[in-house]
Amino acid sequence: MKHNFGAGPCILPQDVFKQAAAGVLDFNGLSILEVSHRHKDFVAVMEQAMELTKKVLNVPSGYSVLFLQGGATLGFTISALNMMRDTKKAGYINTGTWASGAIKEAKNVGIDVNVFASSEDKNFNYIPKDYTSPNDVDYIHYTSNNTIFGTQFKEVPKTNLPLVCDMSSDIFSQEINVADYALIYAGAQKNLGPAGATLYIVKDEVLGKSTSEFMPTYLNLKSQADKESMLNTPPVFSVFVSMLNLQYMEKNGGVKEIARQNKAKSELLYNEIDSNPLFKGTVATEDRSDMNITFLMTDESNSQIFDQMCDEAGLVGLPGHRSVGGYRASMYNALPLESVKVLTDVMKEFTRTKG
Amino acid sequence: MKHNFGAGPCILPQDVFKQAAAGVLDFNGLSILEVSHRHKDFVAVMEQAMELTKKVLNVPSGYSVLFLQGGATLGFTISALNMMRDTKKAGYINTGTWASGAIKEAKNVGIDVNVFASSEDKNFNYIPKDYTSPNDVDYIHYTSNNTIFGTQFKEVPKTNLPLVCDMSSDIFSQEINVADYALIYAGAQKNLGPAGATLYIVKDEVLGKSTSEFMPTYLNLKSQADKESMLNTPPVFSVFVSMLNLQYMEKNGGVKEIARQNKAKSELLYNEIDSNPLFKGTVATEDRSDMNITFLMTDESNSQIFDQMCDEAGLVGLPGHRSVGGYRASMYNALPLESVKVLTDVMKEFTRTKG
Repeated sequence: MKHNFGAGPCILPQDVFKQAAAGVLDFNGLSILEVSHRHKDFVAVMEQAMELTKKVLNVPSGYSVLFLQGGATLGFTISALNMMRDTKKAGYINTGTWASGAIKEAKNVGIDVNVFASSEDKNFNYIPKDYTSPNDVDYIHYTSNNTIFGTQFKEVPKTNLPLVCDMSSDIFSQEINVADYALIYAGAQKNLGPAGATLYIVKDEVLGKSTSEFMPTYLNLKSQADKESMLNTPPVFSVFVSMLNLQYMEKNGGVKEIARQNKAKSELLYNEIDSNPLFKGTVATEDRSDMNITFLMTDESNSQIFDQMCDEAGLVGLPGHRSVGGYRASMYNALPLESVKVLTDVMKEFTRTKG
Repeated sequence: MKHNFGAGPCILPQDVFKQAAAGVLDFNGLSILEVSHRHKDFVAVMEQAMELTKKVLNVPSGYSVLFLQGGATLGFTISALNMMRDTKKAGYINTGTWASGAIKEAKNVGIDVNVFASSEDKNFNYIPKDYTSPNDVDYIHYTSNNTIFGTQFKEVPKTNLPLVCDMSSDIFSQEINVADYALIYAGAQKNLGPAGATLYIVKDEVLGKSTSEFMPTYLNLKSQADKESMLNTPPVFSVFVSMLNLQYMEKNGGVKEIARQNKAKSELLYNEIDSNPLFKGTVATEDRSDMNITFLMTDESNSQIFDQMCDEAGLVGLPGHRSVGGYRASMYNALPLESVKVLTDVMKEFTRTKG
């Protein structure tokens, strides 16, 4: 039995794995891997994936849901290209590696980027709150959860301008108010499905209004929405498994229940980190992520012993990213509370013997 | 038992489906869908997929193999962006829908496109041969096999300039001389693997020499090659299944043996089309594709009966594309000769009863 704390691609429900494997062997008499994306059976899968996304996230009317390719990295480019308007300026909040990537790619397509808030001064260990968002830009962009640094926005940034969010690592982990956004994008490979699909939720009224001179058809959300994610062959299997996982979410209480479970899991681990003298958290308490929990040892001389204990307990994916060091426990939706208990038990046992 | 003549995503070997399903349930103790792309076990999969591609296609040194996302449609943009040089002009051969798409996207990124050869005058039912390729352009582009119209280049276009080819629908179906090309790209979902991965084979010396002002990092083959297809999360499962299929190809005689089988399959069906009075091919004999065989009924009044006979025999994916009408039998590598025999038997039987 392994407990998968990996940062992504990451754990999905075991039921979903079973249904996915079954679909590879038999999907209405063929393998899901050999079905044409134009076949009515797959068109129904795509439609259900889009409809369930709307239902589970309570997406209001006037928004389109798309399943594209390229991950959030191509999303950095797609969001900038499609949101570019007359000023060709945009306001970005820099909360770490992925936010910095978004800034870089916006500049790459000719956006004059105003980084009006940043936590770079403290190695991104907090969410900036003391800022004035600009009014003379086309849109505001932020990254809701910072996988590497373990911070998460608890409130939506205030702005009257169109708001764009890279929600790759916390979408479907909690309730959100989609009406706050002009555009949400998210790589599937955390709480939605396998790597290879990227979700876009876009307000219809922003489509087709880009001022960019450069607009490849694949990157044009208007073209993609007009073809309902079928401009070209979509990532069939990733969409299929995302649909299975959306069905699972809906049957199991939706994002409200998921958020309750995620909170229970993160509280359990944060309480252990805060009460155990051999560990300490790395980020400002009020900005702690429920998805990616980063922590260090107060004394690293026994880290090999702790690592070995984790290994023996079947805990995988815990090494921290090199930008932070220490440990990172990613606790996506499908990670059971039981796995977190195994981790906190190992932490307690380690402290009992080495503390 | 179904016989899958679908144009893509399409049939892959049954052994590959079984191994793929097994990997969804257990890949070294986890599901392949939850493994981090940075984990050594997946890095080994990616490396093997790249190495086997080189081995199976006999790729000479000095070329990089990449597995990206976005299909050939994004490949139209990527190829144009990366091959753009001082003239910002390129020569394209127009042999149908996908070639036209490549032309459109090249123009979209600012290339001055010279369509120096085209078969549009006869609804793309032949491969143009009587042309002079331009010398005052940055590169020459063509589409080796035309899935919709059923034509295929039998010879590589002659040029001294860098040659770029969209090989989506016939790569791995026959031996090729990679040294003829500066860049080959191909959506995986025909003879390589599931939809969601796109293969690039690029000559290292062309990398990093683009003159395009616009170059998002994801679309930059130099950036992708520097990171060995791991600039961001790759389409893990599609790469995994592609690797399984490459292993299968290597074990079963490689592309030389595959080409022999493909030729036997296509000859069987073309012979039936040519000898059966109720059917006729749609394209010039010398340009017929071994992958996608397009044909019409000489009298369509009994087409419903033929369709029903096909249906009863388990033949699926045969309706022709709306641009051509009639029938299209796509006979990718994994389609058994037996399936083609079932089709020709149905054609014979139909003619016996209705002819």
